[in-house]
Amino acid sequence: MAVTDTAHLLPKVADPKESIAEERKSPSFPIRELTYWIDGGKNITQMKERIMLELERSPLWRVNDHPNLTLAETRERAMSKVRHLADLATSRPLEESMLRMSIISVVDPGFWTRFGVHFGLFFGALQGQATPSQLAYWMERGALSMQGITGCFGMTELGHGSNVAGLETTATYDKRTDEFVIHSPTLTATKWWIGGAAHTATHCAVYAQLIVKGKCYGTKTFVVQLRDTKTFQLMPGVNIGDLGKKMGRDQIDNGWIRFTYVRIPRSNMLMKHTKVTRAGDVIEPALAQLAYGALIQGRVSMVSDSANVAKRALTIAVRYASVRRQFGIGEPGTVETKLLDYPIHQHRLLPLMAQTFAMVFAAREMNTNYQKLMSVLSELGDDKGPAVNDAIKNLKETHATSAGLKAFCTWMCLNIIDQCRQSLGGHGYSAYTGLSQAYSDFAVHCTWEGDNTILTLQCGRYLVATALDARNGQPLPANMLYLKDAIAADGSLSGKPCKSDAVDVVSSLNTLKAAWSSVAANAIRNAVRDFEAGLAKGLSKDNAYEFSSASRLHAARMHTYTYLLHRFVAQVEQSPAQLRPILALLARLFGAHSAVQHSGEFLQSGFYSGAQIETLKAFVNTACADVRKDAVSLTDAFGYTDYVVNSPLGRYDGDVYEKYFDLVTSLNPTKPVPYFDSLIKPLLERTNESDTGPELEIDQD
Amino acid sequence: MAVTDTAHLLPKVADPKESIAEERKSPSFPIRELTYWIDGGKNITQMKERIMLELERSPLWRVNDHPNLTLAETRERAMSKVRHLADLATSRPLEESMLRMSIISVVDPGFWTRFGVHFGLFFGALQGQATPSQLAYWMERGALSMQGITGCFGMTELGHGSNVAGLETTATYDKRTDEFVIHSPTLTATKWWIGGAAHTATHCAVYAQLIVKGKCYGTKTFVVQLRDTKTFQLMPGVNIGDLGKKMGRDQIDNGWIRFTYVRIPRSNMLMKHTKVTRAGDVIEPALAQLAYGALIQGRVSMVSDSANVAKRALTIAVRYASVRRQFGIGEPGTVETKLLDYPIHQHRLLPLMAQTFAMVFAAREMNTNYQKLMSVLSELGDDKGPAVNDAIKNLKETHATSAGLKAFCTWMCLNIIDQCRQSLGGHGYSAYTGLSQAYSDFAVHCTWEGDNTILTLQCGRYLVATALDARNGQPLPANMLYLKDAIAADGSLSGKPCKSDAVDVVSSLNTLKAAWSSVAANAIRNAVRDFEAGLAKGLSKDNAYEFSSASRLHAARMHTYTYLLHRFVAQVEQSPAQLRPILALLARLFGAHSAVQHSGEFLQSGFYSGAQIETLKAFVNTACADVRKDAVSLTDAFGYTDYVVNSPLGRYDGDVYEKYFDLVTSLNPTKPVPYFDSLIKPLLERTNESDTGPELEIDQD
Repeated sequence: MAVTDTAHLLPKVADPKESIAEERKSPSFPIRELTYWIDGGKNITQMKERIMLELERSPLWRVNDHPNLTLAETRERAMSKVRHLADLATSRPLEESMLRMSIISVVDPGFWTRFGVHFGLFFGALQGQATPSQLAYWMERGALSMQGITGCFGMTELGHGSNVAGLETTATYDKRTDEFVIHSPTLTATKWWIGGAAHTATHCAVYAQLIVKGKCYGTKTFVVQLRDTKTFQLMPGVNIGDLGKKMGRDQIDNGWIRFTYVRIPRSNMLMKHTKVTRAGDVIEPALAQLAYGALIQGRVSMVSDSANVAKRALTIAVRYASVRRQFGIGEPGTVETKLLDYPIHQHRLLPLMAQTFAMVFAAREMNTNYQKLMSVLSELGDDKGPAVNDAIKNLKETHATSAGLKAFCTWMCLNIIDQCRQSLGGHGYSAYTGLSQAYSDFAVHCTWEGDNTILTLQCGRYLVATALDARNGQPLPANMLYLKDAIAADGSLSGKPCKSDAVDVVSSLNTLKAAWSSVAANAIRNAVRDFEAGLAKGLSKDNAYEFSSASRLHAARMHTYTYLLHRFVAQVEQSPAQLRPILALLARLFGAHSAVQHSGEFLQSGFYSGAQIETLKAFVNTACADVRKDAVSLTDAFGYTDYVVNSPLGRYDGDVYEKYFDLVTSLNPTKPVPYFDSLIKPLLERTNESDTGPELEIDQD
Repeated sequence: MAVTDTAHLLPKVADPKESIAEERKSPSFPIRELTYWIDGGKNITQMKERIMLELERSPLWRVNDHPNLTLAETRERAMSKVRHLADLATSRPLEESMLRMSIISVVDPGFWTRFGVHFGLFFGALQGQATPSQLAYWMERGALSMQGITGCFGMTELGHGSNVAGLETTATYDKRTDEFVIHSPTLTATKWWIGGAAHTATHCAVYAQLIVKGKCYGTKTFVVQLRDTKTFQLMPGVNIGDLGKKMGRDQIDNGWIRFTYVRIPRSNMLMKHTKVTRAGDVIEPALAQLAYGALIQGRVSMVSDSANVAKRALTIAVRYASVRRQFGIGEPGTVETKLLDYPIHQHRLLPLMAQTFAMVFAAREMNTNYQKLMSVLSELGDDKGPAVNDAIKNLKETHATSAGLKAFCTWMCLNIIDQCRQSLGGHGYSAYTGLSQAYSDFAVHCTWEGDNTILTLQCGRYLVATALDARNGQPLPANMLYLKDAIAADGSLSGKPCKSDAVDVVSSLNTLKAAWSSVAANAIRNAVRDFEAGLAKGLSKDNAYEFSSASRLHAARMHTYTYLLHRFVAQVEQSPAQLRPILALLARLFGAHSAVQHSGEFLQSGFYSGAQIETLKAFVNTACADVRKDAVSLTDAFGYTDYVVNSPLGRYDGDVYEKYFDLVTSLNPTKPVPYFDSLIKPLLERTNESDTGPELEIDQD
């Protein structure tokens, strides 16, 4: 036998393109219809596809070489894209621009931030806090179109993040000159993390303590010019530095800013809410709460982003699992088994698929509610009647729900990214397979726009307060109606346990909804119990809330999962008949898998018995096996092009090995070993000189 | 009032150095004694301190600028350190070298890998698989001392990772020339992830299918020269490329290798186990299992590494939490509240502190057992009596235990790093605060040396098989003795539930040990149930194991937590009296917090009632508050110098803001904005030309 003739002795290697093609032979649902349903309509899908194609074809928007760029190149590449997009953002319909940004947030999250700092944060601050004439002035100056002005958002400081009320930067009114003096009194007052400050911004929306006539009025917003718009030299009293390398999103040039007695005209304070007159009188707004509406938008968009990023991660992991083979019979002539055929691999990925759909639908509904709320708020004007009270109630509820959703969806997505990455085995550790950078980029979502832990506590506080109000006869908001059924007047749990042990009952959508309602009610009850125990110890209200923080956080988690499941089921019910079976299966998998993960809660609330939990576990196994049949089709329904997926392992055609090899070799062409002469040759050729000392006469005896 | 006179209006800013100093006023235990206990003796602590100081003082070992190095600089910096360490490794006592490497693994994990690839993997392959004369030959050639040879380890392929038996590279014996022909028959056979291959290695330990006389004998190891040691030119038939950027550990130059009919002498096959004679006869070893001992070492070291890296992460997070202040009373003249004083922050960090101690002690014990086992194995020789059977049993048990520990400890540590990072708020996202890179570097531990999911399934398979053996009268290994008490002859659970509701009983170490034993027994029982259900369906043994994989993985998790708790308690009992209270508290926190996280298991096994779970939750809250008093002292006891901690937020003296600012500004000096002329100026100064088309005559009517 020739030494070249060995193929028949080895296991057969399957063609990955055929492996993935098999998966598409008989989807249980019309894929295109599901895409429309996920996107919210055929027209949106088509607009998305046009945008994806435009991005893919523009050389500016190349992204597969990102891992090989230096920090400086990364930032320059990002800046080179700003102008084109700024023109599109101001000339194209808002809906299209929003959709474009939501795609860019998946393709290039760091650029999304760079762009969003101006349009979302800086211009958003003007929109939300400037008077009409101030807004007109800044728009005239080019603040919307980035003609003459590029903005940044100066809120956080080196020593102060979540507690905006604790910022140290001061804005002191100098009546003599009709100016504010912006000043950073200490090192910890240094503005820190200011995106765009290091290299890009001409102006900054600075959050500072308003001080007038020796009195502090709390944190307000001031437009401060940072750089001369012609020369880009720093303005007098402004010092700026570069924060350098970050965990992710290096496309944005975060910087620090110190102000040393910088003078700005009084009119640069944004005065939609609080006003300072020429005479130095401070006029505070009647309804400060209405200003919080603007805070919600970022959170709502992060729920969408969690869904969108999770869709990409699962596309990569599921498609790869349908072509990667490992172990199996291993006899010559047979092929190894697909990862996706292993129950444990299904178990790793497919509950995450169900979570992704839960987030898709929650994001859509949250977004609709938010738009409605904002249009109500904008129409309120100076009315102070019952409409305002209703709006404030609605605002509080949306604030709490969005806080919980933002926290748990961003945590969920971060986990999905890393689980998907780990499911790629060693290849997940390559920078070219897309998920390590996705993790680093996404991670900050758990911190900014409200640290997740603080948001969950806010949500939990709302749940406790609302439950207490309900005990005092106040009506419950729609999303908390389950409390009424689950908790009796004496505070005991009155929900009915699951009566049947049949798998179809235990894991039905109605049972799961009731189950989650029961544990959420129980968790809120326990948080109320701990809060009241704190009060009974003589703690202040705030300290009693601190005392109950563990159970409060837990209540927020249970409530948010319940919300996710209920909204998911509502979407299943509204969906086209052809899609209902697969969506219902995913909703059941979501509810049942999450219940198994938190089985203690269900046993404690008495809803499920131990045997029923075992039934749920068995259901999760069979549901995974059922979803597995459609798994690749579900990634197809997400509708991301290969350009957006941006991972050779997640290619539509399954040709993973060829394209992975091509990408790695094209980005890392072979060159001579760079340090052979300087380091390797001396290492290999060295000889160790004896390092014993000279002989000593005394030892020779 | 002058505009500069505002300090009295703002909240007071606390001195962070004073904030941390307060924490050290009254530790409940002698810190230095705990350091000795953690390290394993005063002499080890002293040796560690000497090594840390030596590293800190060497300019080669600067690490705080790592985030600003390019990929090429990172690799060159790493290579520049190899020579010095190679000389130390071969001239200093083994114990010192091991300790040095364990510190380097925390300080510079990527370098640890670069160095470990030669010493651990390449030379380890020679040690474990070469005959005595082969080993002597390669040592003579410089394979230990890196004089003439630097090695890499060629196991994984583009298409093959976990399944070593499925590798495609062939080593075909050519009797005519007494050579093996090494060949990569397909693209997926390309050696992939080979650390050191891209730029550094002269030789490779290649895993390939041994083919002799038309028969395949499975995967064996062959030494193949990659590069000329004088010119560093690639040898004929060898193609190598660079895998470029990775998620982390960029200090090591991973590469791919393709072999095209490369000829090596027959003697380059490592023949300690399988031998091929000149005539082409293949002599296979009687006890192939004994070769698996070498696999365990990497896992054991990763348990230690998990503990060591977690110590660093907690040092950073806890110290920062003792100086960072946020919210609180907020009146002028008062200071904000320390993060560490918030119950929820204690809840985030201090159970992780308890987990870290659990890993410290498990690692130590695992290491001791492994050393014992290896010395028994090495003394066995060709004996084939009962001593060998005992050794094989012991080996299997250690294999399974180390598989479970490696998986759950690396996952635990990865979670600890990210939880600690998130607890730093926005500053956790900076590359200069140390935890984002720690995450990226550590993540690969969950994949290499056995993918965690596959390892847990192996551990679970052992648990099921051992439980079945026990049912057939075989004795249980020590770590599984709990099965005897918990499971009756008929397979039902016979463990006794917790009888008291008193918090001191519910959360005592004895109760917690019994509780975990009971849930581990229950989980194993359920895995056996599912395995047997698979058999009853007519599945093959292997497929029945696949069928039961979810419950098998779960059994491995419960068993491993039980092991961690039992070993922790054993260490508490052996510890010096002064340390026992704090260690016992940490052990209780570990056991109770883990139980609350898995409360469903305890309710299902009937060990705890729902009310007792609530008692445990309350205990976790008070235990966190108790550990909080010593939290900074515990980080001091870890004994890492500021150099090793390598984060301005984790400094011993608490001077976080000054030093963070200094580091960021020194690494990122202010320079002119790099793309003002090319990108920003044109953006700011552009005007949009009208983009309506020309007028049309037909519209003028």
